[in-house]
Order: sequence, then C-alpha cells, then structure tokens
Amino acid sequence: MHEFDLIQWIRQQQSPDAHVLLPAADDLAIVRFDPKDLILIGVDQVLDGVHFDLQSHSPLDIGRKVMNRNLSDCAAMACLPASAVVAWALPRKIDPETVKQIYTGIKAAGDAFACPIVGGDTASWDQRLVISVTILGRSAGITPVRRSGARVGDAIYVTGPLGGSILSRHLTFTPRIAEARELVSQYPISAMIDLSDGLSRDLAHICTESGVGAVLDADLIPIHPDVRQLPGDALSHALDDGEDYELCFTGPAGINRAIRVGTTIKEPGLWIEKAGERRIVKPGGFQHQLQN
Amino acid sequence: MHEFDLIQWIRQQQSPDAHVLLPAADDLAIVRFDPKDLILIGVDQVLDGVHFDLQSHSPLDIGRKVMNRNLSDCAAMACLPASAVVAWALPRKIDPETVKQIYTGIKAAGDAFACPIVGGDTASWDQRLVISVTILGRSAGITPVRRSGARVGDAIYVTGPLGGSILSRHLTFTPRIAEARELVSQYPISAMIDLSDGLSRDLAHICTESGVGAVLDADLIPIHPDVRQLPGDALSHALDDGEDYELCFTGPAGINRAIRVGTTIKEPGLWIEKAGERRIVKPGGFQHQLQN
Repeated sequence: MHEFDLIQWIRQQQSPDAHVLLPAADDLAIVRFDPKDLILIGVDQVLDGVHFDLQSHSPLDIGRKVMNRNLSDCAAMACLPASAVVAWALPRKIDPETVKQIYTGIKAAGDAFACPIVGGDTASWDQRLVISVTILGRSAGITPVRRSGARVGDAIYVTGPLGGSILSRHLTFTPRIAEARELVSQYPISAMIDLSDGLSRDLAHICTESGVGAVLDADLIPIHPDVRQLPGDALSHALDDGEDYELCFTGPAGINRAIRVGTTIKEPGLWIEKAGERRIVKPGGFQHQLQN
Repeated sequence: MHEFDLIQWIRQQQSPDAHVLLPAADDLAIVRFDPKDLILIGVDQVLDGVHFDLQSHSPLDIGRKVMNRNLSDCAAMACLPASAVVAWALPRKIDPETVKQIYTGIKAAGDAFACPIVGGDTASWDQRLVISVTILGRSAGITPVRRSGARVGDAIYVTGPLGGSILSRHLTFTPRIAEARELVSQYPISAMIDLSDGLSRDLAHICTESGVGAVLDADLIPIHPDVRQLPGDALSHALDDGEDYELCFTGPAGINRAIRVGTTIKEPGLWIEKAGERRIVKPGGFQHQLQN
C-alpha cells in the first residue's frame, strides 16, 4: 500500500463533528470553539521500543495508549478534549493493516471522549515507528487546574491504586477526565497532575511548581495488586513505577471519592512517614524505558 | 545532559506572549484566542535522513525548516500562526548543544511570525531524530482559503520560481504568510496550497478537491536558476521537485504580483501545453526522500 492510499484511508475514518468545520484534507484543519473557552494544547508521542513494543503489543492497544496519554493530560487540567492531530513516522516495511489497527485504536480512544481526529502527517523511513498525538482541549466552564496552586497544609490525593502498570495497565488505562471534572466542580482542587512518570516524580512536579513540600503516609498509599507479581519492594513500585495515569491532586481534607495519601508542608522536598519515622523520597520514577 | 535538564532549558527559552496564559510547564499549555477567530490546526514532522541530514545540515537550519514547513501551511490557508508545540524523539547520544541549536532555529522561525512555542514533549531512544511541530493558526479577519474552491476558468498562479530546492532552499525558504494574506485581502482567491510536494502533485490536490482539471503553459512556468546545476530536464524539475514552499493558487486573471502559469478547465487531469501541443502531466513530485 502506497503512503497516499493510507492517507486516503485515514481521511475516510473521520466522523463528522459539529465543531470541525474542515477536517484533514487541506493544509490545516479548521475547528470552531465556544468564544468563552480557554484553549489548551499539548503533545505526547510514543516510540516503538520505549513506550510500546510493536512486536508484542496489540496495534489496537498501542493506538489507544497514545491517545489516552493525551486524554490523561486533559484530565490533569480538568478540561474537555476537543480535537487531535496525529503524526506518523512509519517504518517502510510496516504492514498497512497494522497502521490501520493502530489508527482504529487512536480513534476509538478519542471517540470515547468525543475527541475527533482532525488532521495529521505521515512519512516513511527505515527506523522504528513514532506516533505523535497533539491534543486540543477546551475549558468548557471549568477553570483549568495547574500544577502550581498547592498551598501548605493541603491534603494530597490519588484517584486509584498505583504500581505495576508495566504488566498491562500502561496499555489499557482509562483517562480520568470525568473524575477530574467532577472533582473540580465540587471541591477547590488547588493543583493536579496525571501520574505518568510515577507518584514520586509527578508529586515532586506539583511541589516544585507550587513552592511547597509533601509528606506521604506509607500506610495510606494504595498499592495495585499487580505489584505482587513483580520483584522488589511493593511501596517502591507504588511510588516510582510510571504510567498509572491516575490523578494526583491537592485540596481540602475530607474528599471521600479519592484516596488521601499525604499532606503538603512548608519544608521543600518529598518525604514519606511510616511508624512515626520520616525519610526523604528521591523522585525516581519512570525513565521512559520499557522494562519487559 | 539529562533529559530533564534539556526540558528545563527549553522552558527557559519561551518568551512571554499576550495570548499565552500558561506556557509549557504543565500538562497542557493554555492559549487565549479572539472569540471571532476560527482556529486552524496542523502537524508536520521532519525525520533525520528523510527531510534533513543531521550529519551535514546545520542544526539551526534544521530547526528553521520544521517550523517554516508549518508556517507555510498557515500561508496556504492565509491564516496567522498563533502558537506551536514541539515533540522530540532524541537519539540517546545526541549532543545537547545540537538540540539547543535546533530549538533555537525553531524558535527564530516562529518569532519571525510572532508564533510562540507553548509546549512540547521529549523522549530518548536508540533511533534517529524526529521533530514534530504542531501549529495553531487563527483566521484573524480573513476567511481561510481551502484547496477545494477552484472553478473552471480560474487563472492558476505561483508566487515564485520553482525547482532545485534540494540544493539548499528546502532549508532556507521563507513562508509566504504575508503574501498570502495580502493576496486574499485584495483578490477573490478561490483555492490555495503551498508547494511542498511539487507543482504537479500539489496542483493535482487543488484539482481533485475542487473537481476541475488544469492546463499549465510550459513557457510560463518560472524555473529557478538552481535547476541549471542539476541533471535532467529543467521543466520537469520545476514541475516535480518538492519543497519550493511557494504558494500555488487560483483566482481571477490579472493578478500581477504573482506568476500566472495556467488555467483551470472542466476536463479532469493535469495537462501542459507547449507550442500548441497539450500532453498530460502525471503528478510525480517529491517522494519525501532526500536525494543528496
């Protein structure tokens, strides 16, 4: 299959969308936003051999993963996804059916959150597969939550159990968009991030951006059952493994729909307490390297 | 240099911009648009060994090229660039200075058209360099020009001489944004595209999307002097070489600031006339493959 045939196939997959005035068939796509919307933009790529393995992972899962990583960034800011574009660097000998299945995975993940794919770029080369998705979000009535708003004394929460995502969940997670928008609608959430690099590293981002420190309670950190199948210390997996794609956020005490794991403090740095003893946590999360 | 140090350096390069409420330091950047703006979006990537050669091309030129390709897409639709995000797949052993220079080239090209870089993504791998830029444009008072509006009997124009860009101009061209907006402000331009794949291929896109054919006049096609340095037929270079990044557009006769090269016709297909003889042109432009 020639590259142009693949482009043609990709264009045919686009669904009509009221916000998309002109989808990918021109130099740029045209999208209409509500005048009150703030517009959010970010890009997230996956590389064969780093974020997925084309030999062993299902193409549908690979596609879902790259789109869901971007949707998870929307969740982290509590915005609604609005549209996306996809750039493909295709190995010359890739089976076009594989590309179509990856695209189908991307589209299915986007469709689940009403996020149409409105354009893209394809090129072929003799290196491995790169898929880069850029997402546009819209505030849609909710002020975006930044990483920088945490204040001393805020409670720290996560939305689900952590660790061991490498076994399968890094491919199959659900972006927490609905949860984020519900939380932010109901509580004064001060800072939020999605856990892509691991709790220790991502919470450190919130701390650095907000100018606070944090103490985690070792007994409160929810450890995913998958961790049991992995060698090493379970708590370290929950702290340092990447790609959980749960949310970590700060806000008032007493939010029952999430799991409280600690408190922000004035002293800089990330700490963990167990049995009254406090030790420092070195942010040592996910290094963007597949371990399997 | 660690990947996080590089991310830090990249963030420090961002200039304040009235439209950018939150630049790249969070999950997504936040951009404010005029409520009357239509928003345009597109992505364009460059691959080492395909669109540039990291061994022989200057990093600044490589950076300028990837941004200018995106700005040229804005020109093709007569919109103003508004902001961009950049995804980097970095070879593990790349010199950080090289990355910084490429970034500086990207930023310089964007700055020339008031287009700030507002976010991005970096990852490292053991394959070659990929740089993917996504651009947002805004209509800013001018209705975007599509490829699909050409009508039978329109004059066909290009904005400059064609062919031989591979010698150096594919790295050093200027996106025709100012020209596009002036033309569209003053004349009823019916369809427009930028010449990235070569006149024969890109004009064929206008014809297909508009449901018309086209006849080029062989004597009117402006051949760039660079073509003389290349083997082969000069006219074929002007027709088929890619990466001129001039504009090709259709509209009324008599536009003096561009070079008329032909006329749209009812019969589908792309034709060329010389000395009263008409033959068909097979779109055979640039194959996204460096020839040097």
